[in-house]
Amino acid sequence: MKYTVTFEPDNIEIRVDKGTNLLEAALAAGVHINATCGGQGVCGKCRVMIEAGEVDSEKTEKISQDKYDAGWRQACRTSVMSDCTVRIPVESRGLKLVIAQQLDMGKAERKVSALDTKPLAEGWKLDPMAIKVPLRLSAPTLQDNVSDLTRFSQGLRQQHEIEDISADVRCIKAMPKILRTNDWFVTATLTTDPVRDAFLPGIEKNRPWKLVRIEGGNTSDQNLALALDIGTTTVSGQLVDLRTGMGLAEKAEYNRQIQYGADVITRIVFALKPEGPKKLQSVVVSSINEVIDELLEETGKSKKNISCIAVAGNTTMTHLFLGMETRYIREAPYVPAAASMLLDVAADVGIDLPDCVQLYTFPSVASYVGGDIVSGILGSGVFQKEELTLYIDIGTNGEIVLGNRDWLACAACSMGPAFEGGGIKHGMRADLGAIEGFHINPVTLEPMVVTVGRTRPRGVCGSGLISVLSELLSACVIDRNGKFIRTLPSDRVRKGRFGYEYVLAWSEDSDTGHDIVISEVDIENLIRAKGALFAGCLTLLESLDLSFDDLDRVIIAGAFGRYINLEKGKLIGLFPDIPVERFHFLGNGSLLGARLVCLSSGMLSEAERIAKMMTNIELSDNHSFMDKYMGALFLPHTEAHLFPTVCEYLDTKCQMIQSERNA
Amino acid sequence: MKYTVTFEPDNIEIRVDKGTNLLEAALAAGVHINATCGGQGVCGKCRVMIEAGEVDSEKTEKISQDKYDAGWRQACRTSVMSDCTVRIPVESRGLKLVIAQQLDMGKAERKVSALDTKPLAEGWKLDPMAIKVPLRLSAPTLQDNVSDLTRFSQGLRQQHEIEDISADVRCIKAMPKILRTNDWFVTATLTTDPVRDAFLPGIEKNRPWKLVRIEGGNTSDQNLALALDIGTTTVSGQLVDLRTGMGLAEKAEYNRQIQYGADVITRIVFALKPEGPKKLQSVVVSSINEVIDELLEETGKSKKNISCIAVAGNTTMTHLFLGMETRYIREAPYVPAAASMLLDVAADVGIDLPDCVQLYTFPSVASYVGGDIVSGILGSGVFQKEELTLYIDIGTNGEIVLGNRDWLACAACSMGPAFEGGGIKHGMRADLGAIEGFHINPVTLEPMVVTVGRTRPRGVCGSGLISVLSELLSACVIDRNGKFIRTLPSDRVRKGRFGYEYVLAWSEDSDTGHDIVISEVDIENLIRAKGALFAGCLTLLESLDLSFDDLDRVIIAGAFGRYINLEKGKLIGLFPDIPVERFHFLGNGSLLGARLVCLSSGMLSEAERIAKMMTNIELSDNHSFMDKYMGALFLPHTEAHLFPTVCEYLDTKCQMIQSERNA
Repeated sequence: MKYTVTFEPDNIEIRVDKGTNLLEAALAAGVHINATCGGQGVCGKCRVMIEAGEVDSEKTEKISQDKYDAGWRQACRTSVMSDCTVRIPVESRGLKLVIAQQLDMGKAERKVSALDTKPLAEGWKLDPMAIKVPLRLSAPTLQDNVSDLTRFSQGLRQQHEIEDISADVRCIKAMPKILRTNDWFVTATLTTDPVRDAFLPGIEKNRPWKLVRIEGGNTSDQNLALALDIGTTTVSGQLVDLRTGMGLAEKAEYNRQIQYGADVITRIVFALKPEGPKKLQSVVVSSINEVIDELLEETGKSKKNISCIAVAGNTTMTHLFLGMETRYIREAPYVPAAASMLLDVAADVGIDLPDCVQLYTFPSVASYVGGDIVSGILGSGVFQKEELTLYIDIGTNGEIVLGNRDWLACAACSMGPAFEGGGIKHGMRADLGAIEGFHINPVTLEPMVVTVGRTRPRGVCGSGLISVLSELLSACVIDRNGKFIRTLPSDRVRKGRFGYEYVLAWSEDSDTGHDIVISEVDIENLIRAKGALFAGCLTLLESLDLSFDDLDRVIIAGAFGRYINLEKGKLIGLFPDIPVERFHFLGNGSLLGARLVCLSSGMLSEAERIAKMMTNIELSDNHSFMDKYMGALFLPHTEAHLFPTVCEYLDTKCQMIQSERNA
Repeated sequence: MKYTVTFEPDNIEIRVDKGTNLLEAALAAGVHINATCGGQGVCGKCRVMIEAGEVDSEKTEKISQDKYDAGWRQACRTSVMSDCTVRIPVESRGLKLVIAQQLDMGKAERKVSALDTKPLAEGWKLDPMAIKVPLRLSAPTLQDNVSDLTRFSQGLRQQHEIEDISADVRCIKAMPKILRTNDWFVTATLTTDPVRDAFLPGIEKNRPWKLVRIEGGNTSDQNLALALDIGTTTVSGQLVDLRTGMGLAEKAEYNRQIQYGADVITRIVFALKPEGPKKLQSVVVSSINEVIDELLEETGKSKKNISCIAVAGNTTMTHLFLGMETRYIREAPYVPAAASMLLDVAADVGIDLPDCVQLYTFPSVASYVGGDIVSGILGSGVFQKEELTLYIDIGTNGEIVLGNRDWLACAACSMGPAFEGGGIKHGMRADLGAIEGFHINPVTLEPMVVTVGRTRPRGVCGSGLISVLSELLSACVIDRNGKFIRTLPSDRVRKGRFGYEYVLAWSEDSDTGHDIVISEVDIENLIRAKGALFAGCLTLLESLDLSFDDLDRVIIAGAFGRYINLEKGKLIGLFPDIPVERFHFLGNGSLLGARLVCLSSGMLSEAERIAKMMTNIELSDNHSFMDKYMGALFLPHTEAHLFPTVCEYLDTKCQMIQSERNA
């Protein structure tokens, strides 16, 4: 059920779901309301008057009975229950004109859950990695006493026209008993045999069926797969029904390797210790097992229903998961042990599933362009389209792929952990209390702060940092070098221990009891991170004689990417300044591709082909990249012609703000 | 150095090696010398007079100084050191005419050690199961930072034109360090990838190279294979140099599974117990490990020089070795779990070798025609020749293969353990003190007994039983039903507790302090065993409208078979009565074939083809077999026309003996 909320006096409308928090509705509409406690209701600043319509809002200490009776409410404690009209008090209001000129990003497609996302790849049919076929065999006689395995294979040939088969030894061992205790009526699970060892590049392989499981009776109605994305921070999994192609559930857990380091580099360093690789493998597997348990619990399915797993991860995650040497990924010239490395049995690496469950791992391209990117390119269909696409996966490393169905080039640029809160004084992950929504009144410089869970602020998460940075910029609180304007009439901008800073939350509003700030040092780190990504994209384009204008599509992938406000990303120069309709938010593209290979053997071959097709362009010693990186250390960029729309918007807005401030 | 020994007064000559024991020379020449202590020198009966030539013989208590000076010696304590003339005293002498009429078997080719045996298979070239190639790679740079595995594969392609490769995950894991600590100069071990799982029948597979090991520097001069025959009683192994194709050493140990039962049936019964399969697998592997240690100790080679193992064994041994279900091999209709079952890593079943060592297991045909027979057919070249061949492997089961390059039929008949000493009162294995050589004086009925190790007799081994049985028959001590002649004038033939028996050794001559005898019950068991084998051969031939006369060759294989006297085997009806030159003794054919697959990838494919090509004829419910079996329970056979030469010989000899006895 959707309702329209009209904010007065500027008459700004927004359609929201029933029950939407009013403060968040205002934030989404670009309506400024002072709010400093993150949404917990304790600062009492976000008072609004409900002029019409129905809301759900308790009476709080911050609103007197008189005021309450008159229709005043705390926006952060109020849910929208019908169409309504809300008046913003004068002390909260920003500039109407400014608001009206915000860049529109509503047209960019955005999916929140990969479970809801249809693979963009086309032309594949349901031809899953594992199939289950029932078999009714005749009992042996003295005249026909071939081995059980031979009888079984004859049955497959005669009843299902399946010819080209190998069989797992564990399966052969179990076969005699299962056949006889089930009166020779059984169900065979067959998997396409991706590769049981790593095949060296350039070699095409047949992928014959492999017999991995026999069960009594007909169990062919239960055939599931698990698609997994092993991220540096998060392990995500989907349970997929191989008969229908439907995703049944999606779960995510922190990658427990975090305890040994926040990024791949610190984990590689940890892996140099004697027991390091073993510990890192064991904890990531325990995270995976947890995701599996949650998926099964939610769907009421059993472990024995799972036939196969497809795993996508960056090169380091994949190496650690399989117990491979990672040392040389970190040291120049950045060489992985193997680009293509596949095991056959999930249980062999410790995954808590029956030992018949087959494991497929996506091939990688280079040390910093891994199987997750190959999987994303597969799932996004970039490799099939004539359109020129730029695929961006934002994380500690920004991975970029450029190309179409004829060619693919890729690069990785070290953005550093700034956008994940690393190296930022009050940076944090998107946990409870992390500032994610932020708006600033350009005249009063008072903020509107919304946190994850609407509790008192504890810090700022990645998407919050982008909001904060773009707001500071577009409200003329910082200049385009990322330095604070020194003359602003607010105690929120001050000189702190580490240089100038803006106080996002005073100690009395924060959960930590300390002021929460963003400093010029933090801003410098963020500018470096966004600069690296942008320079990477530009270098990749120019190395192929292309420019942003040539792009038909930009796909933003990555779990983090899906929370980023496109407009704000453009404002700070993180994303190129091209029309909004060319942008697509994919969500977790890696997980999408992993689901796709479970569903289609043809796509599984395509994944191997994509990995071989991608040309990696090493940026770390690329002079052109270094030049472009220096040029990008500006908001949005030193070269204004690269961001025409953004620069025009900023120029106009700054003029207006200056005149307002001077007034 | 060979010398001629002439036995007088019958002027019988034999050529023997320098140092040959004189008693054994007499036995081989068919010259009877009374000897009852097995060759230990304590009975003093084997006195002979050295009339000319040089012998090496100590003075013993049994010969007075006068006699010694006159040239008397104990034959069992005497070695031949030149051409010599030896006179047999009258009390020892048998019948000259009889001796002269002995069937000649000298022309049958006989090999004692499989190590000396050249495979009879033809047309193969040295193209071993595993190769080692040195590789000098360039170190990676930022411009060329492909994965180690990719670099490695490029090197193989450029330096050795090796393209089609997969790689073991363990190997990829070790690769980064080995490459860097050896300055990118390494040696790769590649194996033909027989099958990493069991391939179902009827499917042709590519056998691409598989990378299994990387070592620093150039180690390609050390590349060994292990050929193994897992017999029910004995585990035999050969160490093979894959560069030259030479066998370096051969060793054998008892299969320690013996403690759980002497034959496959009792072991299958033991395997029904909860821990049975695990125990049986573990002990046979410990026997294999012992053989490996001995081979390495003898040759001074190291475990790390071994690249691959080929294993041949009967179906039950192979199942137990790999830990597969054996229950249904024993129960009608006798179905193995799998005919073709292959693991890839020897260490996975517990063999104490590095985990890069690849394991190939021969495919079997049926529950009682196993990989050892497939291996024997391969090694013997039967599958390549136009000539029609009957291949016989004698053991607890008699396995028979009939055919040529166009077709192969096989059958197994349960001979029982009689020829291995099982179910025979004083039967034993061919250990120290086992009677193996036996001759009888048809007039005095005194025996000539030679034991393994020439020590006091402890019992009779398999080849000894054949000697004893044929001697009792041809000396008219038993009739053609296997019953003792009741009227013989010797206390050696007597009625014992279990019916009539012949005393092979009196208690004072034996090592056990008891009389060692062979009884009518024992003889019955032996007749059943030889009857089963002969009936099996006949059934197989007749089922294909063939007779023994159609055979171009008979190959006798099996470690036991190589000690059998062909003539004596014919006499009792164990072997068909066809010309001696058609017989070939192969020794351990199974081991021979195992060596061959190590040396030639082509032969490895042939092994798989042979297994599929063989048609198994089940004898257990075959009425024709049962009839033929009944007919064969006679010495040599109820149908004299099947043994024309033997019957004529026996008739003539018996007449002579009767007239001599009557004289």
